[in-house]
Amino acid sequence: MEKNKNIITISREFGSGGRSIGKAIANELQIPYYDKELIMQVAKKTGFDPKYIEEQGEYASGKTFLSYLSAFTGRSDVMGGMSAADFLWVMQQQVILELAEKGPCVIVGRCADYILKDRSDCLHVFVHADEAFRAERIVRLYGQTEKSPKERLKDKDTRRSVNYKHFTGREWGKCQNYHLSLDSSVLGIDKCVEMIVNIVKESK
Amino acid sequence: MEKNKNIITISREFGSGGRSIGKAIANELQIPYYDKELIMQVAKKTGFDPKYIEEQGEYASGKTFLSYLSAFTGRSDVMGGMSAADFLWVMQQQVILELAEKGPCVIVGRCADYILKDRSDCLHVFVHADEAFRAERIVRLYGQTEKSPKERLKDKDTRRSVNYKHFTGREWGKCQNYHLSLDSSVLGIDKCVEMIVNIVKESK
Repeated sequence: MEKNKNIITISREFGSGGRSIGKAIANELQIPYYDKELIMQVAKKTGFDPKYIEEQGEYASGKTFLSYLSAFTGRSDVMGGMSAADFLWVMQQQVILELAEKGPCVIVGRCADYILKDRSDCLHVFVHADEAFRAERIVRLYGQTEKSPKERLKDKDTRRSVNYKHFTGREWGKCQNYHLSLDSSVLGIDKCVEMIVNIVKESK
Repeated sequence: MEKNKNIITISREFGSGGRSIGKAIANELQIPYYDKELIMQVAKKTGFDPKYIEEQGEYASGKTFLSYLSAFTGRSDVMGGMSAADFLWVMQQQVILELAEKGPCVIVGRCADYILKDRSDCLHVFVHADEAFRAERIVRLYGQTEKSPKERLKDKDTRRSVNYKHFTGREWGKCQNYHLSLDSSVLGIDKCVEMIVNIVKESK
């Protein structure tokens, strides 16, 4: 096995338990876990509203920065012709590269697998699950909405996929982009955690 | 974890060690291993030359059965307008379904993941690896050829991908089609074997 897999990136289908898995791994390995925290760091750098950044992280948008100027004023001078989404992408990349420099951690989402693809100390994981498993989880964790669970899953995954393709040029959920991909509905969330922790520990 | 994962299908990139992994798993679990043997069974059923079937398993062909009639005579009456490749696909499906009925086993290649997708007792695995790892392996195991190792890898994987798409309508190497996908160049072949054996044992 390759040595020193200290940074774990987790990409995941909506509702597959990727975040829970990421948190449990970070907890077991006693290393930092980043997702919203990461967003807040980006927010501090850019002056954008964290809520907007959070949405933007999943939705590649055709809107230009100018359309957001009324809400977030005074930054058009530094951004040239960049769209808001492109600008955030650059900021996000920078934050993720800096976090990885700091040392071992778990990063969930945000195309971190692509951003850190040239570091040899990363383990890139993709978590997916069947529809029934994910539908049950999102209703249990996030409640009912007007949309059916099935529509919500499709909607969110399509956006993640489009966003990933837009910024990385790669296919979201293609085995070759990850060192390990796991079906959490078949393996179970605990087993996924155990497998990843085990790989990281054995790589020491 | 889901129970009774008794049948392991392994799809793999050329040179990634998928066959070695499959054999080692079958050996450790003391269950039958099928790839060439499977081909021979198909051959017996169809009367085709095993060598042709082996090639056909990887290369979706536009050639119709008639073009092979000179070599394999007397069967056009039972095949209607089917191409040779389509006919073999039907035979292969039947053999794989029958093997799965017989009990626990490891099946490498031949779109077995798709053919057995409706059985709940299967663990579907995809094995891939980076180019350098695969190039070194194919030269070591199969020797040099006129083509560069890189070309050989690309050629074979493209054919596998086209064949898979042709017969299954699905994308080859898409995480969601497998319960587990492993980068053998990062995890190592022994670790891949250990992980799969462990999952199968724990599912008992």
